[in-house]
Amino acid sequence: MTYPLVGMVGGGQLARMTHEAGIPLGIRFRLLADTAQDSAAQVVNDVVVGDYRDLPTLLSFARGCDVVTFDHEHVPAAHLRALEAEGVVVRPGPEALAHAQDKGVMRSRLSDLGVPSPRHRIVRDEADVAAFAAEAGGFPVVLKTVRGGYDGKGVWVVRSAEEAAEPFLAGVPVLAEEKVPFVRELAADVVRSPHGQAVAYPVVESIQVNGVCDTVIAPAPGLAEETAVQAQELALRIAKELGVVGHLAVELFETEDGRVLVNELAMRPHNSGHWTQDGAVTSQFANHLRAVLDLPLGDPHPRAPWTVMANVLGGDYPDMYAAYLHCMAGDPQLKIHMYGKDVKPGRKVGHVNTFGDDLDDVRERAAHAAGYLRGTVTE
Amino acid sequence: MTYPLVGMVGGGQLARMTHEAGIPLGIRFRLLADTAQDSAAQVVNDVVVGDYRDLPTLLSFARGCDVVTFDHEHVPAAHLRALEAEGVVVRPGPEALAHAQDKGVMRSRLSDLGVPSPRHRIVRDEADVAAFAAEAGGFPVVLKTVRGGYDGKGVWVVRSAEEAAEPFLAGVPVLAEEKVPFVRELAADVVRSPHGQAVAYPVVESIQVNGVCDTVIAPAPGLAEETAVQAQELALRIAKELGVVGHLAVELFETEDGRVLVNELAMRPHNSGHWTQDGAVTSQFANHLRAVLDLPLGDPHPRAPWTVMANVLGGDYPDMYAAYLHCMAGDPQLKIHMYGKDVKPGRKVGHVNTFGDDLDDVRERAAHAAGYLRGTVTE
Repeated sequence: MTYPLVGMVGGGQLARMTHEAGIPLGIRFRLLADTAQDSAAQVVNDVVVGDYRDLPTLLSFARGCDVVTFDHEHVPAAHLRALEAEGVVVRPGPEALAHAQDKGVMRSRLSDLGVPSPRHRIVRDEADVAAFAAEAGGFPVVLKTVRGGYDGKGVWVVRSAEEAAEPFLAGVPVLAEEKVPFVRELAADVVRSPHGQAVAYPVVESIQVNGVCDTVIAPAPGLAEETAVQAQELALRIAKELGVVGHLAVELFETEDGRVLVNELAMRPHNSGHWTQDGAVTSQFANHLRAVLDLPLGDPHPRAPWTVMANVLGGDYPDMYAAYLHCMAGDPQLKIHMYGKDVKPGRKVGHVNTFGDDLDDVRERAAHAAGYLRGTVTE
Repeated sequence: MTYPLVGMVGGGQLARMTHEAGIPLGIRFRLLADTAQDSAAQVVNDVVVGDYRDLPTLLSFARGCDVVTFDHEHVPAAHLRALEAEGVVVRPGPEALAHAQDKGVMRSRLSDLGVPSPRHRIVRDEADVAAFAAEAGGFPVVLKTVRGGYDGKGVWVVRSAEEAAEPFLAGVPVLAEEKVPFVRELAADVVRSPHGQAVAYPVVESIQVNGVCDTVIAPAPGLAEETAVQAQELALRIAKELGVVGHLAVELFETEDGRVLVNELAMRPHNSGHWTQDGAVTSQFANHLRAVLDLPLGDPHPRAPWTVMANVLGGDYPDMYAAYLHCMAGDPQLKIHMYGKDVKPGRKVGHVNTFGDDLDDVRERAAHAAGYLRGTVTE
C-alpha cells in the first residue's frame, strides 16, 4: 500500500468531515479521540481512544503516520516538539500553531508584522484594564483569556474596571482588546502547503449570535473588491509569515471605512469554511488534507453565485432525524451535515448548506432548515 | 441516539462511497465485508467480517439494523426472504432484486411489461443457439449466463453454433440475445423510495472498452429530448413495476432510428452514476440512502453543463498515489475517487470526475487523468 496514513488529533466534527473528504483520495486515516462515541470516532475505521495530553499516548498514536494534523489547537506545544524530535511530521508545526494556541503570542506577532489589529495589551489585574481603557478610547473593553476560549467562551465585554474581575479567576493570562466599532465580521480562509503553494477562498460574511457563529454567506454580500483582495492578501501573508501548513481561517472585523482588522486565527478547518463542502470546487477539508500531504491544492472557486451555511444548534427536541422529513421534502436541494452528537441546548450539532442564484432565497432556505431542525421554526 | 442504522452487504467501492455519502446525514452505517481489507472496510467503523452466503452470519449482521441494503446482487434470494421473515427490512426486497440477480427472470418480466428489449430466449445447447439465431436475424448472437456476470464476464458474442460451447460449461442457464445494432449505449438512472417517490437523473452516454465501462458523459451528448424522456420514463416505469427501492440503473442500447432497448438492470448505486458525486446536486449514493431510509429524495439535476466520469483501471504501475502530483498540479478542478484497492492490470481501482462548460475539454481532462493514473499516458 503506497497511500499515506494521516493521523488527526481530536474526534470532533472537523475530524469527521476531514475523514469524509479523505475517502475519495484513497488515503488512510487514523484518529486520536477522547472516546469511541466522539463525532469522528463513529465513522472512522482506525480509532485510537486516548488523551492527547498524555505524551506516550500521542507518540504511540503517531507511530506509522506519515503526517499528524489537528481537529483542535489544544495539544501542548512541548508535546508537538517531542513528536517532531521523534521524527513525526506535524502539520501545522508547533511554531505556527503557537499563534492559534495563545492569543497573546498571536497579537504580538501580528503587531510585529504590521497587520491591522485592534489595540491590545496583556493585562494583570483590574487596574491594568482601567489603564488600557484610558489609552484605547475608553470602555467597553474586550477581555480574553489567551488560551482555551472558543465560541464566545473565555471572552468578556466589560464596561468598567469593576466588571473585570472574572477573567482573572482562571489563572490564565488575560488579553485586553479595544472593542472595534465594526460593521460586520468577515473571514478570509486560505490553505497553504509545505512547499509554499497557497489558495484563497472567497471572503465570507460571518454572522454571530450570542458569540456563536450562526450564518456564513459566501461570498460576503456587497463587499468592495478592494477590501476582498486586501483581506485575501492579508490572510495569505499571515499564512506565509507564520509558516502555516493546512487551512488557516482569519476572522476579521470590517470597519465603517472599509478597513479590515484581524480578530482571531484558527489553523485547521473552520466553521467559516463549511460552505465549501457544497459551494466550492474543492472543500476546505479536502484542501487541508492536500496541504498537509504536500499535494497540489484544489481549486477554491465557488460553484454557485451564493452559498449560505447555517449552524444547527441543539434545542429542546432531541430527535433531529425526525425533522429531516419536513426539511428534505420542502427543499430537495438542501444539504444537511450532522455530526452524530447528542443534542444539548445551544450545542453545535450540525449545519446546513444551501446554494443558488438568489441570495434572499438561499439565506431563507438555510435559516428555515436550521431553525426547523433546532425546533425554533415549526412550519 | 435516534439516527437509524443502515446495514450494507458487501465491502466494495459502492459501499465505500455510500458510507462517504452517509456521513453528512448523521446516520449510522454497518458493513458486512468479506475481509477487513475490503475497499469499504478500510473506511467504515462498524464492520462485520463474514460470508454473506452464510445465513447465520447475515442474520447476526442484520440484527439492530433499521434497513439492510446491498453493494452487490449476490445474496441468495432464499437468504433475503429469511431475513424478511425475521423482521429485517430489506431494500430493495427479494422480489425486486430477483430481476437484477437473474437475467432470465429480468428478460421475461420486461417482455411481459412490453418494455423494448432485444429478442431473447433461454437456450439449452448449441442446437438451441442455432435455432434462436435463425429466428432472430442470424449470427452473431449474444450469450449470457443468467447469473454471476459483470464487466463483460459471463458474456460471449458468438458467430456460429460451433462457437457456442463455452457458455454452457458453467452449468448456469444461458440466455441468448439478438445482437442489437446499436449506435451507442446509454444509461437511465432513477431512484425510488418505498412510498413511491422517484427521481430521474439525466440520461448519460456510457462508453465501454473491452466490455468494461470506460467513460460516462452526463448528459448524453446530442441525445434527442424525446429519446431522453422516453428513457427516463422507461426507467421510472421499470422501477415502479418491479417494486425497486433505492437506485436503479437501466443500461440501454440506442438504435439508429432513435429507439432505446433495455440491456441490463442494476439495483444499487452503479458505475453509470458515479458522475453524480461531483456533477449532480444529490449523488446517487446519497439518494440511495435516502430511498432505503424512506426519506424524501434529493434533487437529481446536474450542477454543470457537462460532467465526465472516467474509470481508472489498474496498469503496470502499482503506485497511483505518486501520479496524484502531476494530475492535481495540472488540473486543480479534477476530482479523484480512489477505492483503496491494490492495483491489478485491468481492475477498476478508482475513477475521476471532471465538469465544465466545454465538453471536449471536460472529456480530455478526464481521459488524461485516468490514463495518467493508469500509466498509459505519460505526460
